[in-house]
Amino acid sequence: MADANDPGLLSAPQTALLVDLYELTMSASYHHERLDAPAVFELFVRRLPPNRDWLLVAGLGPALRLLREMRFGEAELSYLRACGFDDSFLERLSTLRFTGDVDAMPEGTLAFADEPLLRVTAPRIEGQLVETLLLNQVNFQTMIATKAARVTLAAGGGKPGRGERVIDFSPRRDHGIDAAMKVARSAAIAGCAGTSNVAAAMRYGLRPLGTMAHSYVLSFQGEREAFEAYLRCFPESSVLLVDTYDVEQGVRNAIAAARTTGFPLRGVRIDSGDLEQLAWLARGLLDEAGLEDATITVSGDLEEVQIAHLVGAGAPIDRFGVGTDLGTSRDSPTVNGVYKLVADRSGGAWRGVRKLSAHKQTLPGAKQVWRRIEEGEMQGDLVAPEGEPAPGEPLLLPAMRAGEVVLEESLEQIATRASAGLASVPARLRRAETPQGTEPYPVEISPSLTAA
Amino acid sequence: MADANDPGLLSAPQTALLVDLYELTMSASYHHERLDAPAVFELFVRRLPPNRDWLLVAGLGPALRLLREMRFGEAELSYLRACGFDDSFLERLSTLRFTGDVDAMPEGTLAFADEPLLRVTAPRIEGQLVETLLLNQVNFQTMIATKAARVTLAAGGGKPGRGERVIDFSPRRDHGIDAAMKVARSAAIAGCAGTSNVAAAMRYGLRPLGTMAHSYVLSFQGEREAFEAYLRCFPESSVLLVDTYDVEQGVRNAIAAARTTGFPLRGVRIDSGDLEQLAWLARGLLDEAGLEDATITVSGDLEEVQIAHLVGAGAPIDRFGVGTDLGTSRDSPTVNGVYKLVADRSGGAWRGVRKLSAHKQTLPGAKQVWRRIEEGEMQGDLVAPEGEPAPGEPLLLPAMRAGEVVLEESLEQIATRASAGLASVPARLRRAETPQGTEPYPVEISPSLTAA
Repeated sequence: MADANDPGLLSAPQTALLVDLYELTMSASYHHERLDAPAVFELFVRRLPPNRDWLLVAGLGPALRLLREMRFGEAELSYLRACGFDDSFLERLSTLRFTGDVDAMPEGTLAFADEPLLRVTAPRIEGQLVETLLLNQVNFQTMIATKAARVTLAAGGGKPGRGERVIDFSPRRDHGIDAAMKVARSAAIAGCAGTSNVAAAMRYGLRPLGTMAHSYVLSFQGEREAFEAYLRCFPESSVLLVDTYDVEQGVRNAIAAARTTGFPLRGVRIDSGDLEQLAWLARGLLDEAGLEDATITVSGDLEEVQIAHLVGAGAPIDRFGVGTDLGTSRDSPTVNGVYKLVADRSGGAWRGVRKLSAHKQTLPGAKQVWRRIEEGEMQGDLVAPEGEPAPGEPLLLPAMRAGEVVLEESLEQIATRASAGLASVPARLRRAETPQGTEPYPVEISPSLTAA
Repeated sequence: MADANDPGLLSAPQTALLVDLYELTMSASYHHERLDAPAVFELFVRRLPPNRDWLLVAGLGPALRLLREMRFGEAELSYLRACGFDDSFLERLSTLRFTGDVDAMPEGTLAFADEPLLRVTAPRIEGQLVETLLLNQVNFQTMIATKAARVTLAAGGGKPGRGERVIDFSPRRDHGIDAAMKVARSAAIAGCAGTSNVAAAMRYGLRPLGTMAHSYVLSFQGEREAFEAYLRCFPESSVLLVDTYDVEQGVRNAIAAARTTGFPLRGVRIDSGDLEQLAWLARGLLDEAGLEDATITVSGDLEEVQIAHLVGAGAPIDRFGVGTDLGTSRDSPTVNGVYKLVADRSGGAWRGVRKLSAHKQTLPGAKQVWRRIEEGEMQGDLVAPEGEPAPGEPLLLPAMRAGEVVLEESLEQIATRASAGLASVPARLRRAETPQGTEPYPVEISPSLTAA
């Protein structure tokens, strides 16, 4: 059954088994102890990751679909039987569907430490068995959307809404196939213009973008012959890579190839060297040739600090292709979201549950987050018990009811929310580098949560 | 067709479209220029990642299966038609199968900068279209196997073969579903004892391992009641989590619960606090109770430096559960493998191809890597043109011939190779932290590669 060289791809129902073993052992025990009354779990981060002043939430949409599809099939049940799980529990799993409620910050919401990004209310076993899947999807996609938002802010000189200058070039450095699909989606949430990943573009309706590789140029007798061949094949959309040999000669060859073929040169890409200086060189040559509309794309290990520098210096760059740093959030490659039991209903009434381990306390009870915005700027958040009235807007909305998805949004809706959110973050927290000592965004915890 | 909330999971044939757009545009141009003679591409890193003195190669087995399965189906072809690709090229894609050869370092081989990890010899279009998929799989899995090897070395006090002390606890922090599956597999290659990820354990025949969560303990009236319920359900395999309230009382409760139920206490897990001190405390209490065989597992943001410290201090710890750092290679979260055209046969004869961009030179021609081992220690590698005789063992072996997989190994075989390789790395490069100025492993480039 097991196969060391299996491609390792799961279908949506099969993700039911993407659990940590302890979720199954605990669930088996709950089953035998008849501890399956509804319970409440919340997903949140205890601390923001290093170099991050906020998180841009992502991953909810695909995660809810996975919850809806999860099933323990025959193969999974046989495997669990071989692992020692007993028939009574396996019978429970064989008919298990996720029937719970999810309340969540819609994707594209800005979030902070101690704020539940989502809350699951479900029979305890169901709530327990979705822990790993939810964390696996939401931690990672939130991390990427956050990184992508930082990059788009940098490309816009600190202002949101300039994502059209950023392209996801990351699939070769992403952590596997699911990562490549979700990085492209998360980048779109942050406003990126498109992705080089064609499978993701197809699946999510994104704009597929790309140019050519050095190997293409090397495959012809000369650079100019390569450019002419490319223009003949893609007369309407040619962006030519000009740094295989020498950028100045490359731009001259691109201009000449466009003249020879009679097709327009849409732009050039520079992938190495001093990008600021080379962009000026290329801009000068293109303008001199009357090609003021030809764009300049740059790439090559770019991230937000370097992009902010290029934009700040006024370099004539139209587009940034961002790969490794966008796809891995290299400077801060984890979001440490946790999924904690906060309330249960063992005895008929709801009871808040808190954990007291050293340095790892959990606030008890179901919570809501309230955000006050004044004159377009976020003023502060309050984390309060669900149901306690508070000023501002509540951030957690109904996303799933009795196992049915009730919150489904388009990527345009989500990206619009993200853009509005980023525009309302205090300006001090929108820079590529936040100086030490900068006042963090204020998040208050309602006294009724800590007094208990 | 596109769906913003799609789970985003691909089947093996669908991964044919996991390409960067430029691979398709270049291939379309090659098709029209009739440039589809065999070409040679090599995958290698130009520099080792920060904090890494070697790489442990992984990802080949699943990647070859994906190459074998890739197909452009009807849906993909319609999408590409809508993107503007013409009928002649789409017809080529509709029957395209990967028919090339792959030579590769088997998984579990140690590799260094400038050494091809794999080499593809295939009709140019096929060779081009598999670029992203190969990089996506091999970069990431090699990164994780390398990190996992560092962790297992630390757990063994710098000696390989003590991987049985390390468990993969990472799925909640891995970058998506494919990442979670492949992290577990890569960790097994590095010798880890097992994984908490049940789907990966099933698919890859790994040992599923786990304990319980704090939420389980919080779900009962008291800690002792929770432990007793768990022992009743899993009398043969109970490892109890003892830090929900207070570790000392937790261990006492675990011992008492075992006595009450009459089932053996297999071990305890500590997930927070001063692990060295708490491990001593737990060991003392367990020994006092005559439970010398009960193991101590620790977890909580562990990585190799911290583990090396705990092992060096002689802390009585049997097992390390490693999550975030193992699954994301947090201190060095990318392997910058590239995939470069190195030779083609445009005019009937093979021709080496080199790239000359600033700082990004590529050595021309198909290459082999030779390793000299004396008295069980690696002495140095030589990168030479394929076919040039050299002393030592050649590292690249036939892995695929005419699209058929010819190198398939079990995870035991691969882990055995990895363990032998790690044992033969010079001891100065086996520490959790390599001091600045440490002599790197010597890799020579044959003069015939640079002279050309």
